[in-house]
Formats: sequence, C-alpha cells, structure tokens
Amino acid sequence: MSSQTKFKKDKEIIAEYEAQIKEIRTQLVEQFKCLEQQSESRLQLLQDLQEFFRRKAEIELEYSRSLEKLAERFSSKIRSSREHQFKKDQYLLSPVNCWYLVLHQTRRESRDHATLNDIFMNNVIVRLSQISEDVIRLFKKSKEIGLQMHEELLKVTNELYTVMKTYHMYHAESISAESKLKEAEKQEEKQFNKSGDLSMNLLRHEDRPQRRSSVKKIEKMKEKRQAKYSENKLKCTKARNDYLLNLAATNAAISKYYIHDVSDLIDCCDLGFHASLARTFRTYLSAEYNLETSRHEGLDVIENAVDNLDSRSDKHTVMDMCNQVFCPPLKFEFQPHMGDEVCQVSAQQPVQTELLMRYHQLQSRLATLKIENEEVRKTLDATMQTLQDMLTVEDFDVSDAFQHSRSTESVKSAASETYMSKINIAKRRANQQETEMFYFTKFKEYVNGSNLITKLQAKHDLLKQTLGEGERAECGTTRSFTCGSGGFQHRTLNVSDAPG
Amino acid sequence: MSSQTKFKKDKEIIAEYEAQIKEIRTQLVEQFKCLEQQSESRLQLLQDLQEFFRRKAEIELEYSRSLEKLAERFSSKIRSSREHQFKKDQYLLSPVNCWYLVLHQTRRESRDHATLNDIFMNNVIVRLSQISEDVIRLFKKSKEIGLQMHEELLKVTNELYTVMKTYHMYHAESISAESKLKEAEKQEEKQFNKSGDLSMNLLRHEDRPQRRSSVKKIEKMKEKRQAKYSENKLKCTKARNDYLLNLAATNAAISKYYIHDVSDLIDCCDLGFHASLARTFRTYLSAEYNLETSRHEGLDVIENAVDNLDSRSDKHTVMDMCNQVFCPPLKFEFQPHMGDEVCQVSAQQPVQTELLMRYHQLQSRLATLKIENEEVRKTLDATMQTLQDMLTVEDFDVSDAFQHSRSTESVKSAASETYMSKINIAKRRANQQETEMFYFTKFKEYVNGSNLITKLQAKHDLLKQTLGEGERAECGTTRSFTCGSGGFQHRTLNVSDAPG
Repeated sequence: MSSQTKFKKDKEIIAEYEAQIKEIRTQLVEQFKCLEQQSESRLQLLQDLQEFFRRKAEIELEYSRSLEKLAERFSSKIRSSREHQFKKDQYLLSPVNCWYLVLHQTRRESRDHATLNDIFMNNVIVRLSQISEDVIRLFKKSKEIGLQMHEELLKVTNELYTVMKTYHMYHAESISAESKLKEAEKQEEKQFNKSGDLSMNLLRHEDRPQRRSSVKKIEKMKEKRQAKYSENKLKCTKARNDYLLNLAATNAAISKYYIHDVSDLIDCCDLGFHASLARTFRTYLSAEYNLETSRHEGLDVIENAVDNLDSRSDKHTVMDMCNQVFCPPLKFEFQPHMGDEVCQVSAQQPVQTELLMRYHQLQSRLATLKIENEEVRKTLDATMQTLQDMLTVEDFDVSDAFQHSRSTESVKSAASETYMSKINIAKRRANQQETEMFYFTKFKEYVNGSNLITKLQAKHDLLKQTLGEGERAECGTTRSFTCGSGGFQHRTLNVSDAPG
Repeated sequence: MSSQTKFKKDKEIIAEYEAQIKEIRTQLVEQFKCLEQQSESRLQLLQDLQEFFRRKAEIELEYSRSLEKLAERFSSKIRSSREHQFKKDQYLLSPVNCWYLVLHQTRRESRDHATLNDIFMNNVIVRLSQISEDVIRLFKKSKEIGLQMHEELLKVTNELYTVMKTYHMYHAESISAESKLKEAEKQEEKQFNKSGDLSMNLLRHEDRPQRRSSVKKIEKMKEKRQAKYSENKLKCTKARNDYLLNLAATNAAISKYYIHDVSDLIDCCDLGFHASLARTFRTYLSAEYNLETSRHEGLDVIENAVDNLDSRSDKHTVMDMCNQVFCPPLKFEFQPHMGDEVCQVSAQQPVQTELLMRYHQLQSRLATLKIENEEVRKTLDATMQTLQDMLTVEDFDVSDAFQHSRSTESVKSAASETYMSKINIAKRRANQQETEMFYFTKFKEYVNGSNLITKLQAKHDLLKQTLGEGERAECGTTRSFTCGSGGFQHRTLNVSDAPG
C-alpha cells in the first residue's frame, strides 16, 4: 500500500487535467476581452480624434471668418477712397503697397484656414469614421476566427482526455490481468511445493491422479491468464502509444496557438488600422504643412515689398503726381527798359575797374564760405549717419518670444522686456530726437550757407563771363543776347523758350 | 510813337513780374499743401495699420484661447483616465502617442498665437504710434525750414524788384538826359545853319557879338547836358549791371530751391519714415515667420510619430501588458497510470509494424497537406499585398487645395472631389472590403490546414524519434523519460520545469 501512495489516483489525474483545461479556457476568454478592450480603446481614440477635428475645424472657420471680415473692412475702405483717387493707382507708394500686401496676406490666411476647415470636416473626420467602422468589422471577423481556433483547441484537448481515459482503462485491466496471472503462478508454485513435501512423507500413489489433474487445472488457468494478460498488455501499449501521440499533437497545437495563432489573430484585428490612421494623420499634416507653405509664400511677398520700401522713389512719385506744383517756374528774364539795347553786364570803363574789384572780392568771399559750409556739411553727414544707424537698428527679431523651452509667462515678459520695454523706448527716442534736433539746426545752417554761396556764385560766374567777354569784346563784336531765354535745368513743364 | 509800341511799358513789366512772383508763391503754398497731404495720408495709413493690428491681435487671442480650451478639454480627460490606468502609462501605444502630440501641437499653436497677440499689441502698435508722432513732429519742423526757405526766396525776388526799378529809373533819366542833349545839339546845329545863311545875305558886324554869346550859351548848355547824360548813363549802366547780377543770383536761388531744396525738404519730412515702417513690418514678419517655424517644428515631431506608427511593436506592448493572458500554459504531461513505468511510445513487436506503417502514412499525408497549404499561403500573401497596397495608398496630399491661383470656390470643390468624393470613397471601400473578405476566407483555410499539419507533424516526429530510439533501444538501453517536462517555447512565465 505504501508504494501505491506515490502514484496519482485516476481522480487526481482527471482533476489536474480539468484544472489545466480550465486555466486555458480562462486565458482564451481573457484574450478575447483583451482584444475587445483594445478595439474599444481604439474606437474611443477615434471618437476623440473626430471630436477634436470637428471642434478644430470650427475654430479654423471662426478664425478664417474673423480674418476675412478684418481684411474686408479695410479693403472696402480702400475701394471707396480709390474711386475718388482713381488716377493715383499708377502712383502706388511703397508703404501703401506693403499695407495692401498685408491685407492680401490676411485674405490668403483666411482662405487657407477655411480650406483647413474643409479638409478636417470632409476628409479627416470621414477617414476617422471609416476607421471606426473598420475596427468594429475587423474585431467581429477576428472574433469569429478566434472562436474557431478555440473550438479546435478544445476538440484536441477533448480527444486527449478520451485517449487518456482509454489508456487508464486498458492499463487497469492490464494490471488486473497481471495480478490474476501472478496469483495463478503463486498457486502453481504452492501446488509444486506441496507435492514436493508430500512426496517425501506420504503415500504418493493414491494422491498422484488427484494432484495431476489439479496441476493441469492450475496450468491451464495460468495459460489462460497469461493470454489474457498479454492481450491486455498489448491493448494497454496501444492505448499508451495513442495517448502519447495525442499528447504530442495536443501540446503542438496549443504551442502553435499561443506562439503563432494568437499573434495572427491580433494582426487580423489590427489589419490596416495603423496604415489608415497614418494616412489620416498625414492628411492633417499635409493640410497644415501646405497652409504653412502658403503662409510663407505670402510673407515672402510682403518681405520683398518691405525690402523695396524706398523713400527716394516715393519722393519722385509724389513729385510726378504733383508735377504742376514742383515744376521749376520760368526764369526771370532781363526786361530791357524802353528799348534799351544793352542787355548784358557792361564791363567797359569806367565800371570795369570796379567790377574787377568786386569780382575778386566775390572770389575770396566764396572760397571762405565754401570751406565753412563744407565743414557744416561734414557735420550734417555725420549726424545723418548717426540718425540712419538709429533708424535702421535691427531690433525686429522676436524669435526669443517663440522659444518653447520656457514657460508661457516668461516668454511673454521676455518679449516685452527685450524689445519694447518702456525704459528702452524712452531712452532710444530721447536720443533719436536729440540727434534729430541737432541735425535740423545744422541743416538750417547749411541751407543758409549754400543759399548765400549760390547767389554769390551766380554773380561771380556772370562777372567772370562778362569780364572775359569784355576782354574779347574789345577785340571783337559784342553779342546782343547772352542771358537770353530758357527755363531752369530739369524742368518738366513744356514752356516756350522765348517769352513774347 | 510807332517805334515805341514794341517796347513794354514799365507797368507791363511790373505786372508781368508780379504775375510771375504770384505764380511762384502759389506753387510754394501748394508745395506745403502737398507735404501736408502726404503727412496726412501717412498718419491715416499708420492709423489704419494700428487698427488693423489691434483687431488682428484680438483675433489671434481668440484663436489662441479656443485652441487652449480645445487642448485642455481632451488633456483633462486624459489626465482623469490616466489616474485609473496609471500602470498603462509606461506602455504608450503609437496611435495614442500621435494623439498626445496633436494635443501638444494644439497647445503650442495656442501659445504661439498668444505671443503673436502680445507682439502686435506691445510692439508693432507701439512702433506705429511712435512713427505717427515722428511724422507729425517732422512735418512741423520741415514746415519751419520750408517757411525759412520761402522767405529767403521772396527776399531775393524783392531785391530783384528793387534793382529792376532802380534800373528803370536810371534808364528813364538816361533817356531823358539823352533827349535833352540831342535837343541841345539840334539847337546848336540850327544856330550853325542860321549863321551860315545870314553871313551870305546880311550884315555880319552888328550880329556877330549877339550870335557869339548865343552860340556860347548853346554850347555851354550842350556841355552841361552832355555831362548830365554821361552821369545818367553811368548810373544806368551800374543799375543795369546790378539788375543783371541780381537776376542771375535770383534765378540761381530759385533754381537751387526747385532742384535741391524742395527735394531736401521732402527728405526732412521723410526722415526715418520708411526705415521705421520697415522695422515695424519686419517685426510683424519676424513674429509670423517664427510662428511658422515653431509650427513646423511641432508638425515635424508629429510626422516623426506618424512615421513610427507600428502595429508590430504595439502588439508586443499589448501582449506584454497582458502577460498573464498571452503566456503559453504548461504543457500537458504524460500521466503514468498506477505506477506504469513505461512512459514513452513503445515500438517493439507486435506494434512495431503497425507503427511503421502509420509513420509512413503520416509522412505521405503531411507532404500532400504541406503542398496544399503552401498554395493557400501564397494566395494569402498575395491578397495581403493587395490589401497593403490599398491601405497604404498615398492619398493624403492636399496641396491642391492650397493653390491660390484659383478662386476659393473652385479650390474647395477640388479638395472635395479629388480626395474624398463619395463615389471614390464607396468604390474604394467596397473594393477593400471584398479583398478583406477573401483574405479572411483564405486565412481560415490556412489556419485549418496548418492546425492539421501541426498535429500530424507532432505525431510524425514522435514516431520518427520512437522508431529511431526503438532501433537504438534494441542495441542499447531504454531511457525512461523522453517526453518529460518543460513548457512551450518562448514562454514568458517563470514556471517550475518539473511538475510535482
């Protein structure tokens, strides 16, 4: 009995087997739950994304409409003023050009954000709802296939159970047959021992026929039991073989399921999910990248216009526009009095000496004035350079404000402090206006000086010419009109050269 | 008298001069008006720009707040669900990662548009109002200088008027002196002719002293008139010279004003306007470009996450998460019945022949099945490839929708037609689902085939081993445990190898 306790009883084996099967069944159920949960999380994610893009689309549309309204407000203002100033269109000043392009860019941004709305509503969201349908359909189909796989597994384990039971049965019969055979052998041995003892001590003749038939009987039984045992042993061997082969098949089937089939099942559930989701995200990205490209193109156009902000060209445009106002007037002509035939400076005696003296005085005065005014001009130029440096300081880079490593708060304060703090502004402007004031003082000085020089120079040049002519006149003929007719240089008005 | 009509009278000359001066004065007034108008247009432009950027800043803030609210709505949802699923954080699936990054990008856009608002309000608008101040101040100062220039011009023309009048006066006197002289000369000639006639016909003695004193008187008068004439002629010459010199100076001064000074005056008005405006526009551009760069960086992060959408890796993550559910179970062990010491397939006679036959049958059956299932697998692979092609079709480029050459309407319809028209979607999806159905049919077929192969292969392999062992066993010893212990391949649970 003690040696039998180490063997499991049939009931124990069955219980163990059933526990193992139960564990597997539980896992299979849990696997479905896991797949279902995975599908549900996906559906939730897709729903969140749809809600997100629906609301984002609304926000883009609001933004687009606000921008459209903003652009339209100023565009209509320009249109109405344009009707008055129709002719001025050809004289578009560079700052106005920038302003029009900023409005144009605003309209462009408005259109692009409307397009974003359109793509989110009619493309991204549609894709997301299709993926939701796919997730539901694929989960359903995958569960179908999974159930089939599970059925197959249970079929295999049921078969194993059957062949195991068969083995148990045949082995039990084999053991029983063996013990019966052993009992017969024991009886035979007993009989054999008994007859040996008797043959020594008792009469053998009377007993012999009795003993012989008994021995024969025992031998026959033993043979019978031997045959039964052999038959049962063969049956048991075959059943054990079957059990062992089914065991291998079952383990292989379970192994295949856990290593390959479960993975394939998840792949069925996943079929296209990542690819479709990626295409949806790429649609969103394509829209956003294209918005950005369009925005960039527009900004480049504005930047180009800003590069072309040109005060010189604008000045000429304004002067062309007001042609009549800036056109130099006719020269003052010499008006000979009552048929006075002399119409040029007379440099003959007795005024010659005086004119010569005056000429030399003018010459030396001009030389001094020019030196003085050149000094003023140099100061003026240097002041202008200082002003220009102030006016063109590159203080417009706001990239620091877009550094995302910092928090929103510190970014905002940084933007305010670095570029436009009140102290900096006040300091800069005070400095600029001081320089500007000095520039204007020097400019007035320079204008006064150059005015004087211009007048004296004109007299000087006329005297020089006259005195030269005078010399020539003495040895030739006098021309009657030297300071005749014609306007100033660069005139734009078409005027008659000779007054009536 | 007829010869005098071709000369202009004094009054005519003065009238002409005054007309010319009036014209110049009118031009000077108009020039100021033009400068004033120019400044006013600039102030209007600056005011429009300020209004524009104030409203744009508001729009940016609204947009920023909407985006912030949108991101927060989903982020708080995630946070609350995270507390439940704390452990799942470490297993961030790739689609969820994309979703989080989209939310992150939304917050980033929100912050950037808030920064745009900040820069417009606290930088761009401040600059614009400063430029307005500058325009007003510079116009005032330029007008001051302009008035001084105009005064100078009027002073010069007044001087011209004075010297012209002086010339006229002296010339008139010169003419008068000349005519008086000519009269005297005529009288002298008359006297001369009279004395000639008388000397022929009348007494000469009595008349001579009378005639002599009369001649002397005439000669004296003539000399006096000659002197007066010379004196007046010199005065006239000097006056004419002065007039001519002043004429040259005046014309030079006017010329200088129209050619240089007016231009300089406009420059004074313009001083720094274009440069300051350019810096303002560049601040706006810098803000917009930086917004764009930030946006681009964020989109690149999302794109990278989309590139990394990976179903295989996600599958492993899920299986790791649900380790207990996907872990292969223990192998079914051979349960020896009641101390049965044989625990492997017995291949000795009398079952050997039968097993050998079974082995060969299995071998040939497996060969057939494998060929058949390989065909199914090939079909399956080809179908999967077709599906993959459908699922990864590059249909996400929406750049056509952002072409600004077309009108807004045509762009919108293009976006809808090309990418997501209902006909295209229905066609595509029908095709996809048909392929998917075929794939699943083939997949079931393949799984069934491979299940059978797995089981038969396991039996085949065990028989092969047994028959080989049997042969060896015949010439050696029999090992007692061959199908002993241990789990399946790839197990992740740590289980005891030998069951109790």
